[in-house]
Amino acid sequence: MAIIDFRTEPSRYRHWRIECEGEIASLVMDVDPAGGLSADYELKLNSYDLAVDIELNDALQRLRFEHPEVRCVVVKSGKDNVFCAGANIRMLGKATHAHKVNFCKFTNETRLAMEDASANSGQIYMCAVNGSCAGGGYELALATDYIMLVDDRRSAVSLPETPLLGVLPGTGGLTRVSDKRKVRRDRADFFCSTEEGIRGTKAVEWRLVDEVAPPSKWNDAVKARALELAKRSDRPAGAKGIALTPLDRKIDGDCVDYAHVSVEIDRARAVATFTLRGPTQPAPASVEAAQAQGAAFWPLALARELEDAILHLRTNEPAIGVLLLRSEGEAHAVLGYDALLLKSQNDWLMREIRHYLKRVLKRIDVTAKTFIALIEPGSCFAGTLAELVFAADRSMMLIGTREGDNRAPAAITLGEANFGAYPMGNGLTRLESRFLGEPETLAAAKAGIGMALAGEEAEERGLVTFAREDFDWDDELRVMIEERASQSPDALTGMEANLRFAGPESMETKIFGRLTAWQNWIFQRPNAVGEQGALKLYGSGVKPAYAKERI
Amino acid sequence: MAIIDFRTEPSRYRHWRIECEGEIASLVMDVDPAGGLSADYELKLNSYDLAVDIELNDALQRLRFEHPEVRCVVVKSGKDNVFCAGANIRMLGKATHAHKVNFCKFTNETRLAMEDASANSGQIYMCAVNGSCAGGGYELALATDYIMLVDDRRSAVSLPETPLLGVLPGTGGLTRVSDKRKVRRDRADFFCSTEEGIRGTKAVEWRLVDEVAPPSKWNDAVKARALELAKRSDRPAGAKGIALTPLDRKIDGDCVDYAHVSVEIDRARAVATFTLRGPTQPAPASVEAAQAQGAAFWPLALARELEDAILHLRTNEPAIGVLLLRSEGEAHAVLGYDALLLKSQNDWLMREIRHYLKRVLKRIDVTAKTFIALIEPGSCFAGTLAELVFAADRSMMLIGTREGDNRAPAAITLGEANFGAYPMGNGLTRLESRFLGEPETLAAAKAGIGMALAGEEAEERGLVTFAREDFDWDDELRVMIEERASQSPDALTGMEANLRFAGPESMETKIFGRLTAWQNWIFQRPNAVGEQGALKLYGSGVKPAYAKERI
Repeated sequence: MAIIDFRTEPSRYRHWRIECEGEIASLVMDVDPAGGLSADYELKLNSYDLAVDIELNDALQRLRFEHPEVRCVVVKSGKDNVFCAGANIRMLGKATHAHKVNFCKFTNETRLAMEDASANSGQIYMCAVNGSCAGGGYELALATDYIMLVDDRRSAVSLPETPLLGVLPGTGGLTRVSDKRKVRRDRADFFCSTEEGIRGTKAVEWRLVDEVAPPSKWNDAVKARALELAKRSDRPAGAKGIALTPLDRKIDGDCVDYAHVSVEIDRARAVATFTLRGPTQPAPASVEAAQAQGAAFWPLALARELEDAILHLRTNEPAIGVLLLRSEGEAHAVLGYDALLLKSQNDWLMREIRHYLKRVLKRIDVTAKTFIALIEPGSCFAGTLAELVFAADRSMMLIGTREGDNRAPAAITLGEANFGAYPMGNGLTRLESRFLGEPETLAAAKAGIGMALAGEEAEERGLVTFAREDFDWDDELRVMIEERASQSPDALTGMEANLRFAGPESMETKIFGRLTAWQNWIFQRPNAVGEQGALKLYGSGVKPAYAKERI
Repeated sequence: MAIIDFRTEPSRYRHWRIECEGEIASLVMDVDPAGGLSADYELKLNSYDLAVDIELNDALQRLRFEHPEVRCVVVKSGKDNVFCAGANIRMLGKATHAHKVNFCKFTNETRLAMEDASANSGQIYMCAVNGSCAGGGYELALATDYIMLVDDRRSAVSLPETPLLGVLPGTGGLTRVSDKRKVRRDRADFFCSTEEGIRGTKAVEWRLVDEVAPPSKWNDAVKARALELAKRSDRPAGAKGIALTPLDRKIDGDCVDYAHVSVEIDRARAVATFTLRGPTQPAPASVEAAQAQGAAFWPLALARELEDAILHLRTNEPAIGVLLLRSEGEAHAVLGYDALLLKSQNDWLMREIRHYLKRVLKRIDVTAKTFIALIEPGSCFAGTLAELVFAADRSMMLIGTREGDNRAPAAITLGEANFGAYPMGNGLTRLESRFLGEPETLAAAKAGIGMALAGEEAEERGLVTFAREDFDWDDELRVMIEERASQSPDALTGMEANLRFAGPESMETKIFGRLTAWQNWIFQRPNAVGEQGALKLYGSGVKPAYAKERI
């Protein structure tokens, strides 16, 4: 099968249009039925598959980086009478379990990125639902901050997944209905088990949408609301966007190479080694100088490359279970970029880059692979890059130097970036989550900002899992990888999904924990995917035959 | 298959002993290998199946009600060198998916009941681990407030489910490691993927246990710790327990009858109708008079019967998907009992009964069936019984009276009990969860305490889902039940599990949400339960062959 590529750009879009008009952008969904990932299905009625969502994800990024003037984004449909019919059901019916799970994960991340833009980026998303809006279509609307529905006695919002397909509204739908929209649970129960959905003022009364307007006043009402939402934005006037130039990636056999990231795949051991290269130039002296570098500015370039590499591994390399995280470079150079980034958070671009790095790190948190960080001589795990050590399931650090290697001993250096810049989905920093039961260790970590900590001290301070001498290193790493590879991939996925999220839960962690786990369970059940299951039989005219057992 | 009966008593125990010595009770696990639910497996090494846990659940209840003098409960093993080997693996290997899920749910509830006793009942649980303590054995220990481990260079705590069986430590293990013990996530990752476990002082350092003691000092150290923990208890001196007399249940065809609860099963429609009968006598005038009634005291009797009925339906009637909740009686009588119960919460017994009712209501919250409350003329949904309306997925209320029925119109009456007595697992009351987005509706509900609200007003105040006239009632109910019965039982289970828990998450909701959902997913995966899966092959000498795909 051709690899799935997450890189795209507006000139290649087949399903979305970005239409900017001053501070308002319209993000127009107009799905090309023939533009899906596979010719097995047609994307009718603005239904979507991963190809559509890859473009949406790209559009969100470009709006944030290339269009700083945009303060409100209106998501709407380019088709008549239909807003969006949700995820394409024939696609779901034919997809492997793995593809379904990966598809839902990516679409969840994309919708959370919309909420992130509304909350943190001064680009407030609203949705103008002008036509039927079902399932994933309504879930898309739910991810915006304000939902308008045309009151034409026909257009309804609905979550018909359960009655129609025997699955859940799993792209955040159930969670956003209960926790974001705070719909009363008995009404939510009725709504989610009814095919037809709810329209008009009743949809407002039930908290399912925020506003309705008749067709005659629709365009004016949407525009007025967008202008009002735009007032909430703190985007600066007159800022100039930077172009997200095409990402240069070379795939050569088992190597994937970018400017600052290389991935080497060892299929025999089911391991991929990520090497992240620190900056080769010192940080620019000013925000203006950074902006002049555009997409080449190291933190932004690194974020884009790392994100693409992770998505590529997730989607195209399912048999690779362990990702080793290495780095190469100078810690002080990394910290120099961090300093510029963090002291300039009142600059829209520096803020965008920080939130982007935050989202890339969150992709690691929900990736179903084991991450092991390796801190070796010559590495540059400092500040933002040190965050990868805490995002990893485990870490191993070399004590001292290697025989025949004259580079400085391995060190890890904490920076301000590790204490608030990159909160996890649970709202805590990775160090706060790590030291949930040890506030004193967290305080000691903070007091150690800027210190280059060698192996034993880093271990003692709880920052790495194991510090090991050179002569133990290779054997121990080999055994660790072999053991991991010998265990059930499914159990490891479940274990990691539980252990990575200690502490508080948020809507976001509920979506990836509770909702996704239940959906994945249902995606395995004969009632959904068996020969008589609802997903399999959809559209065939034959009704699904459910096993009636309640479990 | 014989029905599984949750009723038992100490004289019939085959696996546990309660040994009381003043304020300290020992709860001794000494599993009879031949005493499992099925002859298919032997319960070696203090491994357990549902039969063992049914006794444990009974023992917890009896300690709370029959032994008010007990302030600390020490969970220990009656066998040499082994504390508990966890859930019996041959049982898991042979069990149906439904049985595994139900088994885990009940064991989770039982462990949460231990924590509830420690937190709310003045019976502090500790665990004296004198021998190997693996998987579900350690999960049992984790449910206590204090874990001691003998430091004999041999005894270890471990969670080998993932490396050994390809499943999760799903009886709260992962969640309690991360959220209760707050073990650092990389250490937790190592611990949960290592068969051997961790012993001695390292187990203390890693926060896995609270204390170790050498064999020579073991008994004294355990006793000293138990006496110290007992000091935290607020149990009164000199209180006299009440006997939990055998529960009288009659099963006659499709009817299950108790003194205050009747269940009528309609297999054709896959519905069971629960009728709860209110008190026939006014509430006793005093706590002493209530205590004199013993297990016959209406709220306690009702709690026991309702709990047994729910467990029975869950376990023995999997094909019944909808439970209708009805009541019969006088609202003022229910409120009279509530008044006594709530004003006397400084009395140990009244407090026990409230927490017991709370736990029974929580069993509804995690039961994989649809609950529909029906509020009709002659019903007594007031205070504690009204809570069932809010525990239900939906409710329907009759407006006015029925033709030919001269009973008073249906009414629902809120009481103090609906505003704090019975928090859900998420820490909120059911009304708080219900009105998460409408604080003003919650305030109005509280202002309406004591008012007998008729159908339309109850609907307007958001307390019932639908209020309907007599001439619509039968049709609407019939359609509602038929629609529910026509939908995928799995999707309904997932939908309910998401919609019932709006708002904050707690360790408890994480166990039933995130952890359980992942475990159920894994319990469906070929890597666990396929012919080459780890659960199937365990003990055969053949290694499982895992599909390596990471999903």
